Amino acid sequence: MPKVDIATAPERVKAVIEDIKARRKVNEVNNFWTYLANDPAMLEATWSMAKAVMGPGSLDPKVKELIYVAVSLVNQCQYCIKSHTAMAKAKGASEEDLKELYAVVALANLTNRLAIAYEVPVDESFKR
Amino acid sequence: MPKVDIATAPERVKAVIEDIKARRKVNEVNNFWTYLANDPAMLEATWSMAKAVMGPGSLDPKVKELIYVAVSLVNQCQYCIKSHTAMAKAKGASEEDLKELYAVVALANLTNRLAIAYEVPVDESFKR
Amino acid sequence: MPKVDIATAPERVKAVIEDIKARRKVNEVNNFWTYLANDPAMLEATWSMAKAVMGPGSLDPKVKELIYVAVSLVNQCQYCIKSHTAMAKAKGASEEDLKELYAVVALANLTNRLAIAYEVPVDESFKR
Amino acid sequence: MPKVDIATAPERVKAVIEDIKARRKVNEVNNFWTYLANDPAMLEATWSMAKAVMGPGSLDPKVKELIYVAVSLVNQCQYCIKSHTAMAKAKGASEEDLKELYAVVALANLTNRLAIAYEVPVDESFKR
Amino acid sequence: MPKVDIATAPERVKAVIEDIKARRKVNEVNNFWTYLANDPAMLEATWSMAKAVMGPGSLDPKVKELIYVAVSLVNQCQYCIKSHTAMAKAKGASEEDLKELYAVVALANLTNRLAIAYEVPVDESFKR
Amino acid sequence: MPKVDIATAPERVKAVIEDIKARRKVNEVNNFWTYLANDPAMLEATWSMAKAVMGPGSLDPKVKELIYVAVSLVNQCQYCIKSHTAMAKAKGASEEDLKELYAVVALANLTNRLAIAYEVPVDESFKR
Repeated sequence: MPKVDIATAPERVKAVIEDIKARRKVNEVNNFWTYLANDPAMLEATWSMAKAVMGPGSLDPKVKELIYVAVSLVNQCQYCIKSHTAMAKAKGASEEDLKELYAVVALANLTNRLAIAYEVPVDESFKR
Repeated sequence: MPKVDIATAPERVKAVIEDIKARRKVNEVNNFWTYLANDPAMLEATWSMAKAVMGPGSLDPKVKELIYVAVSLVNQCQYCIKSHTAMAKAKGASEEDLKELYAVVALANLTNRLAIAYEVPVDESFKR
Repeated sequence: MPKVDIATAPERVKAVIEDIKARRKVNEVNNFWTYLANDPAMLEATWSMAKAVMGPGSLDPKVKELIYVAVSLVNQCQYCIKSHTAMAKAKGASEEDLKELYAVVALANLTNRLAIAYEVPVDESFKR
Repeated sequence: MPKVDIATAPERVKAVIEDIKARRKVNEVNNFWTYLANDPAMLEATWSMAKAVMGPGSLDPKVKELIYVAVSLVNQCQYCIKSHTAMAKAKGASEEDLKELYAVVALANLTNRLAIAYEVPVDESFKR
Repeated sequence: MPKVDIATAPERVKAVIEDIKARRKVNEVNNFWTYLANDPAMLEATWSMAKAVMGPGSLDPKVKELIYVAVSLVNQCQYCIKSHTAMAKAKGASEEDLKELYAVVALANLTNRLAIAYEVPVDESFKR
Repeated sequence: MPKVDIATAPERVKAVIEDIKARRKVNEVNNFWTYLANDPAMLEATWSMAKAVMGPGSLDPKVKELIYVAVSLVNQCQYCIKSHTAMAKAKGASEEDLKELYAVVALANLTNRLAIAYEVPVDESFKR
């Protein structure tokens, strides 16, 4: 499906796009939102969830973006890797942070498979 | 395969186990290592990599453990979720941190699939 | 994390739980919601999205539940397989429907891997 | 591996290709089959299974194609997404159906991860 | 769905079960087949494909079973890991073979993620 | 991140690259290593593990490469599929071997999903 032309989109779509611009202090939203605008209800629900999840909280905004990149790497979503790497950098992530992130993601994938292959039982001390 | 009895294991296995105990200041290593001890070469290589990756660096040790949990959740490795959640807590992760982590992991899974379904092209600004 | 006791939960949690009960005409909500209630903001956002997505639309409600089961099978989410199989049945899915669903999911997994292994290029007629 | 030139292929390959053309009332088969023709035994077995699974049954043919697309989205098989989206449309799927499909797939991915992260136990009512 | 009682099953189901017993020289088939018997057409198609794929060929039968275990480990299919590990052993796989298999699977998972994270371009020499 | 220019890289990076060249008897290493060289510690740890895992052992080197390709197909790592297919061929894999590998990978994906969908319990005889 082609991206939606926001100028001629329904009001509810325009309202979300304007809110994204205002919150992020940008003049244009990235492609994800103009494509998702094909489904206005999902656009609203996704943006609403993104605001609730990615906003200020207990974890540092940079850390949230790094976790986003980690998940996107495992799921191999090229778009999400690129966009959230850019956002992580905008929120202060250094190249060194990214390299460490890649190493942790890779190591976790390694040990995840080893734990499964050897059927390692959960230690009593790890159970709540 | 059953776990390895370290008392009667080859010297190279004992050396790794002692190093883990010393580094982590624990009296006993968790099951992952006593099971992986079935393959002494892999035990050495994995522990060596874990020391290189999880040690002090640019990212906070707590953050590295949270990323580990995120990857393990996507890969659904029960053992790794449990063990690295315990390690994240030991390194300072609060229950609030974990809840935010779960939310970011879930949101990323949602938008990963949407970006793929709508075939969203990467914005020029996200390309290097 | 243990499930949340709704009786003593914050008002915003109670409001979501009451809305689920009213919409679904049930006396008790299933575990998913009482566990997710640990994160009130995510509870609200998820329920809000679920209402937007799973409500009446172009696709039959039964079909939406079957697609939900299909995704949960690929992701191997035991809870989601069980809960959405129950919901699919409640919305009219027969045992025959489920068996056909399993067969399509399995066949798709087979041909997905074959298309990747043989690097099959997309036919011109399939491009938009 | 390059695609197989059906004109010079073994008889058993030609027989499958002719059967596909006849059943689907097309003059040419799509690339999947001419590439899989590199392995005649697998070509036969896959086509035979496809006939058994995708033919008329309890579920609507359009619904089967939509489930195929859902699985292919989770597995990220570009070829299969494209080809089965085309087949779904040919069997009556509207653009609205596809948008709803994308939303259900995305929502299921979200709640799959939440159910795993919160370790939600299966409700008694969902057990058989 | 419960397993099918072969004694009272349709003739086409009995025929497949008898063929499995005869080919494998066993008195009873394993659970996979008695459960899949709920869908006779899929039972026939799957067994027919299994005979075509797992029979004698260019690769050693033991190697085919090891590859089966490797895929099942990545997909985390507990049943398939167990059943094909048993079959691999029956076809000559040693405990040492299995340990090496686990190490290769784990290493591949590690480098798969690193290649994706670093966006490593395919070397000219690897292209056909 | 761009690939590392080995000529001006730190000594520890040069040492690994020289070791790869010497062991593999090649004049140039493939891209994976020059990109991973961005993280010298991970370069060392990964190469060290690769030597331990892929070297001579109980399984044939060709078989190890085939298992590597199988895992990379399931994970859809394009780079790894290409590089390890090339290495498998260099170690003696024929085109026939590869076609059988693809068929086993595809069949395993099919039965993995069927075993999960039908919740097939592990046979007593498969338990250790």
